[in-house]
Amino acid sequence: MKIFTVNFRVRSYECDSYGHVNNATYLNYLEFARMSALFEKGFSLDSMKKNGYLVVIRRIEIDYKFPLYMNDEVFIKTFASEARKTSGTFTQQIFRAENNQLAAEARVTWVFIDQGGQPISIPAEIQEAFEIGSP
Amino acid sequence: MKIFTVNFRVRSYECDSYGHVNNATYLNYLEFARMSALFEKGFSLDSMKKNGYLVVIRRIEIDYKFPLYMNDEVFIKTFASEARKTSGTFTQQIFRAENNQLAAEARVTWVFIDQGGQPISIPAEIQEAFEIGSP
Amino acid sequence: MKIFTVNFRVRSYECDSYGHVNNATYLNYLEFARMSALFEKGFSLDSMKKNGYLVVIRRIEIDYKFPLYMNDEVFIKTFASEARKTSGTFTQQIFRAENNQLAAEARVTWVFIDQGGQPISIPAEIQEAFEIGSP
Amino acid sequence: MKIFTVNFRVRSYECDSYGHVNNATYLNYLEFARMSALFEKGFSLDSMKKNGYLVVIRRIEIDYKFPLYMNDEVFIKTFASEARKTSGTFTQQIFRAENNQLAAEARVTWVFIDQGGQPISIPAEIQEAFEIGSP
Repeated sequence: MKIFTVNFRVRSYECDSYGHVNNATYLNYLEFARMSALFEKGFSLDSMKKNGYLVVIRRIEIDYKFPLYMNDEVFIKTFASEARKTSGTFTQQIFRAENNQLAAEARVTWVFIDQGGQPISIPAEIQEAFEIGSP
Repeated sequence: MKIFTVNFRVRSYECDSYGHVNNATYLNYLEFARMSALFEKGFSLDSMKKNGYLVVIRRIEIDYKFPLYMNDEVFIKTFASEARKTSGTFTQQIFRAENNQLAAEARVTWVFIDQGGQPISIPAEIQEAFEIGSP
Repeated sequence: MKIFTVNFRVRSYECDSYGHVNNATYLNYLEFARMSALFEKGFSLDSMKKNGYLVVIRRIEIDYKFPLYMNDEVFIKTFASEARKTSGTFTQQIFRAENNQLAAEARVTWVFIDQGGQPISIPAEIQEAFEIGSP
Repeated sequence: MKIFTVNFRVRSYECDSYGHVNNATYLNYLEFARMSALFEKGFSLDSMKKNGYLVVIRRIEIDYKFPLYMNDEVFIKTFASEARKTSGTFTQQIFRAENNQLAAEARVTWVFIDQGGQPISIPAEIQEAFEIGSP
């Protein structure tokens, strides 16, 4: 199981009237982390389209444990935690770097689809890149 | 059980490179719908703070069923679906108005906290406004 | 000169740690107003692409006059204020509805481009829809 | 004149249906760069409030020169380019790192205000940190 990590600092405009990072922004962070993992492995939206498939998100569960604040250093761990025939689950953990505190944890269920929107088997190149066990 | 409804149209900048509404934006919509429900009942962040409490989100589960596109008319139904001593769950359903299609469904778990961040019983005025059964 | 108007309410997540609408969000509002004007006249990104052109923004000047707050009712007036051979300027005024206060004013310079990204004359159908004087 | 630089990579959700970074997102980037400059010099919203002042944006002019795309490496240069008694101007240049191409350039006019919202002279500690010439 390959674990991908991405680091960044919380930006001012990501915080809301509560003074902490807005709940929706966590999903931006999670997308950023997943896309960084794909990028690290040489995948892009364009390369996937060219190979005849796309990945879409079917379900997200996220638990908010501790708030994040402006200028906090953050890292996110992303790894494939489950795989079925045409879909799978990434677990993503958002940490506050200063104290390695788990700020939020998410389970993201995705499915690979073809150009017509039909679910397909997880492409072999994706299985390999993310070290996804055969379904 | 009181059901709150809010209507709006998908804005261009809410759509991403896929051409449809970005996954994180659904959480913006859900927050907008919850805040509109509070607003409809006369609550605001300030009024809640003044009364010594705040509401924070602990967990969100969202199922994405059909994509939404620019200029789509959308409505969201929000209702209290569960209540425990210090927390509860809102169910929120996002519909594409044109065909009353359920585009996404979410369960949002919140907790009421006092100024010190400690969980408190659901304030009576909130229980009444949202017709939340006694825990 | 046709003036287009769009109405909406400030959403909670559009406000930042200052407690008012974030500066960048005004540009979201302006885009929403311009796209609504196009939509009202039957244009969309797809219809423009199909007709062989796109519109891109070259410059924005915005003056922030009064802050906007959560739940404020807002309206935006959008009109073509200048036209040159291949580009033009929209003036957009953001008003707080409660007191008709001008919250911000912007001048947005756009250019129409063909599929290859080259500037083209303002399409006749656009000139007509927005009542843009011949250059 | 001190020049502050911040580096980052374009995130997927910052791109819109056109496939490039949305116009409004540039203002997010500019705010991030200004806040990073303040942070680098030990300032925060809280520290400024504690010292009795805040900084607000009065006007932004931005010229969009070349689009930015997902995963582009970007850097922003920020420097004080003008100073008057109670206000001043930051010039901010957004570069695509791969070819040092100027993607956008902005002039941001700010004013320092006291707790009551009245304009005040630029605080000495800010003048020093940003090497702002005396007005």
